[in-house]
Amino acid sequence: MTIDLEALYIDLHRNPELSFQETRTASIAAGHLRDLGLDVIEGLGTTGVAAVLRNGDGPVVWLRADMDALPVEEQTGLAYASTAKGVDPAGNTVPVMHACGHDMHVTAMVGAVEKLVAERAEWAGTIVVLIQPAEEYGAGARAMLDDGLLERVPRPDVVLGQHVTPLPAGIIGVRPGTQMAASDGLTVTLHGRGGHGSRPHATIDPVVMAAATVMRLQTVVSRETDPRDVAVVTVGSIHAGLKNNIIPAEATLELSLRYPTDELREITLEKVERIVRAEAMASGAEQEPTIRTDHTLPATINDDEATARAVAAFRRTFGDASVIDPGLFTGSEDVSWFARDAGVPLVFWFWGGADPERFAAAEAAGTINSDIPTNHSPFFAPEIHPTIEVGVSAMRAAAREFLS
Amino acid sequence: MTIDLEALYIDLHRNPELSFQETRTASIAAGHLRDLGLDVIEGLGTTGVAAVLRNGDGPVVWLRADMDALPVEEQTGLAYASTAKGVDPAGNTVPVMHACGHDMHVTAMVGAVEKLVAERAEWAGTIVVLIQPAEEYGAGARAMLDDGLLERVPRPDVVLGQHVTPLPAGIIGVRPGTQMAASDGLTVTLHGRGGHGSRPHATIDPVVMAAATVMRLQTVVSRETDPRDVAVVTVGSIHAGLKNNIIPAEATLELSLRYPTDELREITLEKVERIVRAEAMASGAEQEPTIRTDHTLPATINDDEATARAVAAFRRTFGDASVIDPGLFTGSEDVSWFARDAGVPLVFWFWGGADPERFAAAEAAGTINSDIPTNHSPFFAPEIHPTIEVGVSAMRAAAREFLS
Amino acid sequence: MTIDLEALYIDLHRNPELSFQETRTASIAAGHLRDLGLDVIEGLGTTGVAAVLRNGDGPVVWLRADMDALPVEEQTGLAYASTAKGVDPAGNTVPVMHACGHDMHVTAMVGAVEKLVAERAEWAGTIVVLIQPAEEYGAGARAMLDDGLLERVPRPDVVLGQHVTPLPAGIIGVRPGTQMAASDGLTVTLHGRGGHGSRPHATIDPVVMAAATVMRLQTVVSRETDPRDVAVVTVGSIHAGLKNNIIPAEATLELSLRYPTDELREITLEKVERIVRAEAMASGAEQEPTIRTDHTLPATINDDEATARAVAAFRRTFGDASVIDPGLFTGSEDVSWFARDAGVPLVFWFWGGADPERFAAAEAAGTINSDIPTNHSPFFAPEIHPTIEVGVSAMRAAAREFLS
Amino acid sequence: MTIDLEALYIDLHRNPELSFQETRTASIAAGHLRDLGLDVIEGLGTTGVAAVLRNGDGPVVWLRADMDALPVEEQTGLAYASTAKGVDPAGNTVPVMHACGHDMHVTAMVGAVEKLVAERAEWAGTIVVLIQPAEEYGAGARAMLDDGLLERVPRPDVVLGQHVTPLPAGIIGVRPGTQMAASDGLTVTLHGRGGHGSRPHATIDPVVMAAATVMRLQTVVSRETDPRDVAVVTVGSIHAGLKNNIIPAEATLELSLRYPTDELREITLEKVERIVRAEAMASGAEQEPTIRTDHTLPATINDDEATARAVAAFRRTFGDASVIDPGLFTGSEDVSWFARDAGVPLVFWFWGGADPERFAAAEAAGTINSDIPTNHSPFFAPEIHPTIEVGVSAMRAAAREFLS
Repeated sequence: MTIDLEALYIDLHRNPELSFQETRTASIAAGHLRDLGLDVIEGLGTTGVAAVLRNGDGPVVWLRADMDALPVEEQTGLAYASTAKGVDPAGNTVPVMHACGHDMHVTAMVGAVEKLVAERAEWAGTIVVLIQPAEEYGAGARAMLDDGLLERVPRPDVVLGQHVTPLPAGIIGVRPGTQMAASDGLTVTLHGRGGHGSRPHATIDPVVMAAATVMRLQTVVSRETDPRDVAVVTVGSIHAGLKNNIIPAEATLELSLRYPTDELREITLEKVERIVRAEAMASGAEQEPTIRTDHTLPATINDDEATARAVAAFRRTFGDASVIDPGLFTGSEDVSWFARDAGVPLVFWFWGGADPERFAAAEAAGTINSDIPTNHSPFFAPEIHPTIEVGVSAMRAAAREFLS
Repeated sequence: MTIDLEALYIDLHRNPELSFQETRTASIAAGHLRDLGLDVIEGLGTTGVAAVLRNGDGPVVWLRADMDALPVEEQTGLAYASTAKGVDPAGNTVPVMHACGHDMHVTAMVGAVEKLVAERAEWAGTIVVLIQPAEEYGAGARAMLDDGLLERVPRPDVVLGQHVTPLPAGIIGVRPGTQMAASDGLTVTLHGRGGHGSRPHATIDPVVMAAATVMRLQTVVSRETDPRDVAVVTVGSIHAGLKNNIIPAEATLELSLRYPTDELREITLEKVERIVRAEAMASGAEQEPTIRTDHTLPATINDDEATARAVAAFRRTFGDASVIDPGLFTGSEDVSWFARDAGVPLVFWFWGGADPERFAAAEAAGTINSDIPTNHSPFFAPEIHPTIEVGVSAMRAAAREFLS
Repeated sequence: MTIDLEALYIDLHRNPELSFQETRTASIAAGHLRDLGLDVIEGLGTTGVAAVLRNGDGPVVWLRADMDALPVEEQTGLAYASTAKGVDPAGNTVPVMHACGHDMHVTAMVGAVEKLVAERAEWAGTIVVLIQPAEEYGAGARAMLDDGLLERVPRPDVVLGQHVTPLPAGIIGVRPGTQMAASDGLTVTLHGRGGHGSRPHATIDPVVMAAATVMRLQTVVSRETDPRDVAVVTVGSIHAGLKNNIIPAEATLELSLRYPTDELREITLEKVERIVRAEAMASGAEQEPTIRTDHTLPATINDDEATARAVAAFRRTFGDASVIDPGLFTGSEDVSWFARDAGVPLVFWFWGGADPERFAAAEAAGTINSDIPTNHSPFFAPEIHPTIEVGVSAMRAAAREFLS
Repeated sequence: MTIDLEALYIDLHRNPELSFQETRTASIAAGHLRDLGLDVIEGLGTTGVAAVLRNGDGPVVWLRADMDALPVEEQTGLAYASTAKGVDPAGNTVPVMHACGHDMHVTAMVGAVEKLVAERAEWAGTIVVLIQPAEEYGAGARAMLDDGLLERVPRPDVVLGQHVTPLPAGIIGVRPGTQMAASDGLTVTLHGRGGHGSRPHATIDPVVMAAATVMRLQTVVSRETDPRDVAVVTVGSIHAGLKNNIIPAEATLELSLRYPTDELREITLEKVERIVRAEAMASGAEQEPTIRTDHTLPATINDDEATARAVAAFRRTFGDASVIDPGLFTGSEDVSWFARDAGVPLVFWFWGGADPERFAAAEAAGTINSDIPTNHSPFFAPEIHPTIEVGVSAMRAAAREFLS
C-alpha cells in the first residue's frame, strides 16, 4: 500500500510549526520513515530527524529536507489553508503558515524514499534522510551537526537537497557554483530617550532615528555596491513604541543581508554598521546602537562535478527542456553546513510549483513579480500536482545517480 | 483618623492599571469616598467613579482626577517602583507604570475631599468628585458623559482639575485661555506587498514606505508650519514585520498631533494625510493607506474669569511667588469634555512634583530637558512630599473658592 | 517743487542693484539729500550714504533705510518690473529684483526728509539719514560702522528704521522687545569623491550626502526644538555637479538659521553641526565637512520706552486701529548694529504694502500665505499708494517724536 | 618622420574643449590626417571630422575616436595638467579637463592611422577615420550621422572603436554581446513656491522636495530592481537657490540612468517618474515636475562574430593573458549609432591606462575603487606609456583584421 502523498501534504500544510517547534511534523515524518524500514533517530538538535537505510556496499548519500514554517498569515484562500497560531521566541502569538514550501519538501522526501525502498534491488549503498528543523532561522542544520550528527549516522559522500520555488511546475533549476547567496541576519537596537509625545525636544526620538537609518541603508546597495554585483539589504522588521503619545526609548530593526561572496559580505557589513552608527550620532544618541548577529549563512555552492551528474540525471528523467540554469538566487540556505562539515560535495536544486499557464501568462505580460507569489508571501501555494510527483522524481533521480 | 495618603500613593503607584482596566484603582478610590460620606456611583463609562457630597444650597463644583496608567516599563529604581504587567487592546502583554502621575491625582483628590468634608461647616454647595478612566486614550471623559453622567449627578457650575508635572514641587502653574493643546491620535496603515527578504523587487516594501513617510512628516512642522505657531507631529509607534528575511505586507504608524487651535488642526491634518498618501504613491503602493482617527481632544481652554478666581485662591494659599504662568502645554487632556458638555467654565492647573534643588541645578545648567524626567518617561517620579500636600491644598483651595 | 516720489520709486524698482553694488541707488539718494540741504558723506562701507541735517540744539536721531536688491527674477508682471541682471560674488550673472522693498524704504526716507526739512521750524535737533548697503548680506550696517560712522556723524540718541511688509497698506506693526529674530547664515561644503556616474561604488556621492543632510536637518525644528519656541532652519541653496553623468566631488548648502534668543542660537547651531558631521560619516566621507559662518545677525530688539513713544506717535498719526502688534518676525535685520554700537535705543517697525481688499479676502479664506506675496518672493510688489505716503508719514512722525 | 604622439597627447591634454566646442582638437586631428594623405571632411555635426583612405578594393572599416572633454577641475598634479576654462551651455564658466581620456583616443587614432598608412602595401580596402564630438552629451555620433555622414563617406562593413580605462596598462578588455549599458540622461525640474528664508510656511520648499526625491530615488535600485540585474540611478547634479535666506521657486536635478536592456530601461524610467511625481505631491507642489530627456543612448552591443575576430587579433598582438573579458560596463557610449544606422557589426573595446604595479597593489588591498582614479574623476590620468603604444597597436590590429 502506498503512502497518500497528497493527504500528507495537505495535513502538513494545515498544521505548520514554527522553527525548532516542529514536533508534530517531525513525528509524522519519522513515522513514515520507520514504516518504510529505516533506522530513525529523533530529537537531533531539538526536533531533527535522521533516518538511515543501509542497502549493501556503496556510496553514502545524504538526502535533506527542511520542515519548519513561518510567522505569516496565510491568504491563499485554499480549502486547506492554515489558520494555525504559534508563539514566537519573543512570546508573541503569531499566525503560522508553510509560506516557504517546506511541507512540500517533507512530502516529496517521504515519496522519494518510498520509491527508493521499493526499488532497493536496483541500487547499493546507504541513504541518510535528514528532516531538518529551523532552516528559517538559519540554525537547524548547525543544531543537528552540533548534536553529533556526523558521529551518529554514516558520513556522506555527497549531500543532496531541493527547494520548491515559483518556477513553473515541471521545471528543475540548478547551476554549478554559487546557487544561493550568503546571508547575515542582524538585529539593530537604536537607543534614544523616551518621553511624552507632545515634548519631542525633551527626548531623542528613536522612531525618526530608525526611519533615517532605513532610508540611509538604501544607499549601501544603490550607491556603494558595484551595480554588477549582487547585494541585498532588507530591513524585514521595524518596531518601536506602544502608543501614539509616548515617544519610546528605543527602536529595533531586523536586517537581512545577502551577497554571493565573502569579500562582499565583509564590506557590506562594514557599510551597514557605519551607517547605523552615524545615524545614531545624527540623532544625538547618548548610547551607541547595539548590533547583534542572529545568524550567518554561507553561500550555497554546488560542486561542479556532482552538479553535472545531477543535471544529467534530471535531463534523462524530465527531458532537456525541463532543466534550466535559474541563475543565482539571492535567498540563502543552511543546507551547506552538512556538506561543509563533512567536507563533501553538495548539490542543491530548485523545482517549480507554479501553475505553468499562469506563469507563462505572467511572463508574457512582464508581471511575474506581481502575479506569481514567491516564497514567504502569504499567497505562496505550490500546485499540488505535479509538484509532489516532480519533487519525488527529482530527489529519487539524483539519489540514484550517486548510489551504485 | 486621617487617611494615610503616602501609603495610598505608594499602593496606587505599585499597582498601575491600563486605560479602561482601572478596576482596582476605582474600587480603592470609591471606598475612600464612600468612607468619607459621599454618595458613590461606580462603573461609569466602564470603570469611572462619581461621588456626590451635598452640603446645603450653593454652587455645584465638579472636581476631577484621572486614574489610568501607561504601558511603560518603570526605570525609576524606586523602592515602590512598578513591576506590573498588563494586556493592551492588541492582546500584547506590556509593562505598566504610572508614568503620568495619575496615582498622585487620585491621592491628592482623596486628601482634598477629606479636608473638605472635615471643614464642611465652613462652606455650602455640592461637590461632585469624578475619578476618570482612560485619560491616556483621550476617551474616558467621553465615556463617563456618554454613560449619562450629566443626568446622574448634579450639573456643575464649574469644573476643576489638576495635573502633576515636572515643575518644582511647591509651584502651581496656570494660565487663562489655552492651557493645553488640542490633539489627534491617528493610526496609519501603509499597505505594501510582502515577500522574501532576498527578493525586494517582487515586493512593495512597507518598511521603506514607512521610513520615508516618517522622514517626510518632519516637514509638516519644519517647513509648513509658521515658526511662531505651535504644532507637534509625533510618530509614537512604528511596527512592521516579524522576521528579518520576510518583507511584510504592511506597516503601522501611530501619530500624535498637537496644535493650539482648530484652524491649525485642520490644515495640519490635511498636510499629514497628503504626505502619507504621496509616500504610498512614491512606493507604487497598490492600495491607499488607511488613516484612522483614534481620538480627538479639544484644546484645554481655561475660562478667564474663573481662572482669575482660582489664581487668587492659589496666591492666598501658596504665596504669589509660587503661582506662575507656565505657558501653553503641548500635551492634551480630555478634561474639557466635562465643561464643554455642561456648558460651564473650566479651570485646569498644573502642580509641580520635581525636586526643587535638582530643578534649579538643571535650570542653571540648561539641562532641564535631559535631567528632569517628564510625564510619560520611564523615570518620571514626583517627590512624594510636598507634592501630595500641595496637590491636596490646591484642589481644596480652588474648590473652596467656588463654593459659597 | 516737491520730489516726485512715485517716479523715484519706479525708477529705483526698475534699476535694482545687488548688495555692495548699489552705486546708482546711493548716488540718487545722495543727490536728493544734498538737494534738500543735508551734508552728505558717500562711500561709507563701500556704497553707504550718511547725510546730516543740523537744526539747532536737541536730540540726535538716526533714520535708517537700506537700499540693496536681491538675485530674484521678477514675476510681478508690473509695467515697471525689473529686467535687470547683476553679477553675484561667485561671478554668476543673475537676475536682480527689489523683492524685499528696499526701493520703497529709500523712497519713503527721501519723502520723510523732505517733510522734515520743510517743517524744520517746528523742531530742533539733528537728523542723520543712513542709506545702507547690503542689508541682505547682513553686512552693510557693520561695514558702515567699521568705516568710522560713529566718528564721522553726530552720535545718536535713538535709532529709527522701518520695513515694508505684506501687512495691509495703511497698517503699522510694531512691538516692544524682540521684533525680529537673530540669524546666522552658514555655508556647508560636503566633501565626497567624484567619479563616473555609472560607477557610484567608486565614488562617495555628495549629492546623496547633501540630500540626506537636508532631510535630517528638518528634525532640528521638528523634533529638537520646543514646539513653543521659534526656530527656523532653511537650506536656501543647494548646489552640486555640472553634468548628469559625473558624480561631483562636493556639494554646497547655504543655510539660514533663525531664533529669538542667544541661548536657542547656540544649541541650534550645535545641532546643525552635529547633523552635518554625522551625515558625512554616514556617507563614509574621507574629509570632514566645512562649515563657514557667512553672517551673524543679532535679534532686533525694540527698546520698551522708545517704542512706547513711537507707538503713541503712530496712533496720533494713523489712528489706534492702524497700529498693531505684529508679533515676532522670524526675518532678521542688521539695523541693530547701529543702536548696539552706539549704545542707544532702537525702534524698528513695519508698515504694510499689501492691497487691503486682497488681504482681507485672503485672510477670510485662510490663504494669506499663498495669496499675498511675501518679501523675497518674485511676486512681491507693494501697492505704490498709499504705501509711499504711509512710509513717509511714519518715519516723519517717529522722527518728530524724538526731536524736540 | 614620425608624429611625436607623446607631444600630441600632452598638447591635447593641456587644451581640453567642451562638447561641440572641439574646434582646436578637430583642427589638429584633421591636420595630421590630411598630412598622412587622407581625404578630410571637417565640420560634420558641428566639429566632427571624417577622413577617408582608399587603398584598393576591399572592406570598408570605420575607425572611431571621440574627442570632447568634461567640465571637471583637474587635480592630478601633473606637469601637463589642464587649467583650461570653458563656457557650458548654461553660460557658466567652468573648468575643463580630459577626465575621460578622449585625448588618448585621438592620439592613439592618429598613431594607428600613421602605421596603417605606412604599411598600406600589406592590406587593401578603405579606412574611414571618425573624430567625433560630444560623446559626453551622447549627441555627437547622432550629430555626425544627421549631417549626412553615411552619404558623404563610404558605407562601412564594420565599425571599430576603443576607450581607455583604469584597467592596467597593457590589458585589452572586450566581450561579445552587451559591452556597455544603455543610458538616459534626464533633467528634472521641481516646481515649488519661493519666498523668504524665515517664512518657510509661506513657501513650497523645492530644496526639501529635491532632497526627498534624491533619497527616494535610491530605492529604485535598492528595492525595486532585481539584485541580479544591473541598474544605476545617479543624480549627477542638483541645483537650487542663490542665497541662504531666499527659498527658491524651483530645483533642478540631472539624472543619469543605466541598464543593460530595453525592458529594464522602460520599467526603470517609469519608477523614476513615479517617484519624482509623488515627491512633488508630498510637498504639495502646485505644478507638476518637468521631466526632460536630454539623451538616450542604446546599449553598446558587440557583434559576436566580429568580436571573436578582434579578440583573435588582440591575442596575436598582445598575448593571450593580456586580453580579458572585463564584464559589462555600466558606462554608456554613443558609438553604437554608427553601426546601428549602417546596419553593420560593431566592436568596441577597452584598453588599460593604469600603472600596473599600482593597480596590482590596489587589487591586493581591495582598494581599487578608492586608489585607482576612474574615468570622469579629477584624478584620472592614464600612464602615457605604454598606453599610447597599446592604443595604437590595438586599433591597428583590429583594423588590419577586417581589411583584406
